[in-house]
Amino acid sequence: MDESLVESSIIERAGKAKAASTALGRLSAEDRNHALSLIAREITDHAAEILAANRKDLERARPLVEAGRMPESLYRRLQLNQSKLNDMVVGVNQVAALEDPLGKVTLATQLDEGLMLYRISCPIGVIGAIFESRPDALTQIASLCLKSGNAVVLKGGSEAEESNRALFAIIQNAAASAGAPAEAYVLLDNREEVNALLKAEGFVDLLVPRGSNALVRYIQNNTHIPVLGHAEGICHIYVDKSADLNKAMEITLDAKLQYPAACNAVETLLVHEAMAHAFLPTLVDRLKAQGVELRCDLRAISGGSLTGVHLATEEDWSTEYCDLILSIKVVDSVDEAIDHINRYGSHHTDTIVSEDNSACEKFFTEVDSAGVYLNASTRFADGFRYGFGAELGISTGKLHPRGPVGLEGLITYKYKLMGEGHTVAMYSGSDARRFIHKPVDK
Amino acid sequence: MDESLVESSIIERAGKAKAASTALGRLSAEDRNHALSLIAREITDHAAEILAANRKDLERARPLVEAGRMPESLYRRLQLNQSKLNDMVVGVNQVAALEDPLGKVTLATQLDEGLMLYRISCPIGVIGAIFESRPDALTQIASLCLKSGNAVVLKGGSEAEESNRALFAIIQNAAASAGAPAEAYVLLDNREEVNALLKAEGFVDLLVPRGSNALVRYIQNNTHIPVLGHAEGICHIYVDKSADLNKAMEITLDAKLQYPAACNAVETLLVHEAMAHAFLPTLVDRLKAQGVELRCDLRAISGGSLTGVHLATEEDWSTEYCDLILSIKVVDSVDEAIDHINRYGSHHTDTIVSEDNSACEKFFTEVDSAGVYLNASTRFADGFRYGFGAELGISTGKLHPRGPVGLEGLITYKYKLMGEGHTVAMYSGSDARRFIHKPVDK
Repeated sequence: MDESLVESSIIERAGKAKAASTALGRLSAEDRNHALSLIAREITDHAAEILAANRKDLERARPLVEAGRMPESLYRRLQLNQSKLNDMVVGVNQVAALEDPLGKVTLATQLDEGLMLYRISCPIGVIGAIFESRPDALTQIASLCLKSGNAVVLKGGSEAEESNRALFAIIQNAAASAGAPAEAYVLLDNREEVNALLKAEGFVDLLVPRGSNALVRYIQNNTHIPVLGHAEGICHIYVDKSADLNKAMEITLDAKLQYPAACNAVETLLVHEAMAHAFLPTLVDRLKAQGVELRCDLRAISGGSLTGVHLATEEDWSTEYCDLILSIKVVDSVDEAIDHINRYGSHHTDTIVSEDNSACEKFFTEVDSAGVYLNASTRFADGFRYGFGAELGISTGKLHPRGPVGLEGLITYKYKLMGEGHTVAMYSGSDARRFIHKPVDK
Repeated sequence: MDESLVESSIIERAGKAKAASTALGRLSAEDRNHALSLIAREITDHAAEILAANRKDLERARPLVEAGRMPESLYRRLQLNQSKLNDMVVGVNQVAALEDPLGKVTLATQLDEGLMLYRISCPIGVIGAIFESRPDALTQIASLCLKSGNAVVLKGGSEAEESNRALFAIIQNAAASAGAPAEAYVLLDNREEVNALLKAEGFVDLLVPRGSNALVRYIQNNTHIPVLGHAEGICHIYVDKSADLNKAMEITLDAKLQYPAACNAVETLLVHEAMAHAFLPTLVDRLKAQGVELRCDLRAISGGSLTGVHLATEEDWSTEYCDLILSIKVVDSVDEAIDHINRYGSHHTDTIVSEDNSACEKFFTEVDSAGVYLNASTRFADGFRYGFGAELGISTGKLHPRGPVGLEGLITYKYKLMGEGHTVAMYSGSDARRFIHKPVDK
């Protein structure tokens, strides 16, 4: 299709989703939860159809894997089975069980006699969710949007096209039968449609990309719609001179090995010079035994008498490997560690391993990241582990929301002012009334 | 200077401000408040110098006013006097008296034995504030940034150059003598430097433009740094069929006449058809008596038997006049009013005048604006009137912060996780530990 035709078609669908979002925002918590339980039931009842659709995706993907054009790991993530469908159902029910995020009064002030101000949580409107490969991402994101009263435009990975379509149909129908307009759910087919969506300012209120750094960066650079997410996760562990080296060892191994492709895996280890000799040789041996490639600065190599490691380049400090690679640097002080992290890091999650309160306090105050940890693996940076019930994404931006983001990332608020004919003129001039500004019960 | 030289010089200064912001964030509430009281005292002590600098600005401006190239109102806003300086001092002291926004624990969860998660408020980093003309804006914004531990790059209107420089020197010195690094305060001189600042991603965390729609829109369209503000304020009043017409009259007159150039002044009045005949003739007479030009749709003209008004065009519904002009449209229902507001409005502030609960509830739920009001003037949309102590700006964006924004707009938060060597691997596999997720006292 002609590019401008695609664009106007997508803008039109986004506009209808926007209009439908008003009706969605009107649904009661009961209605929204009812729709969620319907989705859970329909996924259970139509498991055979979903798995049949998934088999089509797998059949298309298999030759790519064999030709070495699709990694085996991606193929496995694409593959659904009864157990993954059960997990999906559990996930949807968990979202249904979360506290209603809408209509919460977060500020209540009496401005004057008969003039009350409230701040009340409400849906954002239309969410554009662009994600790669895993079909379970679709169910998760659509559930979060439904729970929070938002319309959603979804674009999944093209490898999962058939699976996504099957799941989308179930979600749209279930939501519709609970009173949500069908137009509130849009499934996009291809990259051209995504490009058109990036131009749908005024209709799409928030974009949530989940996938590779390249995907996130592309979206950030090609839209004026706010984007929730992070392009990079360059996480650090700093082993202080007061560190308990057993903790440092377990935390570093976990943060590098437990899931190296995750955004919260460690990429750079900073070690206080006083610890280099005692810590690095054993650590490096254990990492090498697990197939990890080490890229170290000169002081780490000499201080730890390391062999079989690479010399790190300047580029290493700002690289997210997402792989079994770790860069190591020796520093003189907690200050140098903090400077390094603030300069080269991505403001995601950084850990200090230390038993010294003043070093910890300094690290907490001065490291400019969404997560600052003491004696814990960077891998804890995750909405489920934080207890948010579900994760929309992780934001490395400075404006709210920051860090792992659950339902909270899908709501905003309105100020509701209730008067009895109050005018501003009453509060100016010589016999002006004065504001009370009295906080009242929410 | 060469464009690329300007750019690298500004990036360097922004980088130094970024580095200095760490030290600022470390200052205690006492230090920051001490710096604020010093600023207040210095403004008092150096009043003569500030007024002398202001006279230079006024001397440069006078010929422009006489040549008709600067509005008299702008000249008056530019002009300082002892009374305005006193107000400035009061303002700085009020900011000092506000509750400390930093270090607040807004979430505390025990994830597991010995593993505690906290969410703690902290400064954003470096704020870029670009404002027009009024020298008191500089003091207000710099005070808010100091209170919240943020570094700030300031650019005021070129008409106020000398006044701004005098005030800036006082602020920088006072802050420095209380322990804030001088590099944390940057004053820009010209438009080229602003353009360079828009490219200082990674150093400047948030841009706050205050001024004309054109200024805000220019900044939004030319940077990847988050922008807090609003380009337009197209506010509505809807007079419902159940409206108390006395309230409707007072509110409409206030919202149009009290300060027509403000972003929260009303631009479009929507009137239920049942009220057109009873309400419009008197209203139009009173507005015309105050020099207001009316632009009405056909139903308003015939329903109100109006004379001496203009016929509104489609463009009127999406125009912010900032002037003594009001557009008027007759609608069939609260639904039509809501649709009109969501379609043509700017999501700023909209009022319903009504005595009918169900119409009000519908309006509150469905109008997609930062402020939704009942029986009160749109002019109440203001940080001071809301009781926030000071106003950074008004945000019509959907992400936090929204609406009038005080100190809250200058803070973000970090997640602080405190463990005892905890690894994620402990929580996976066959004998995985389970998270407790127990809320604890903040």
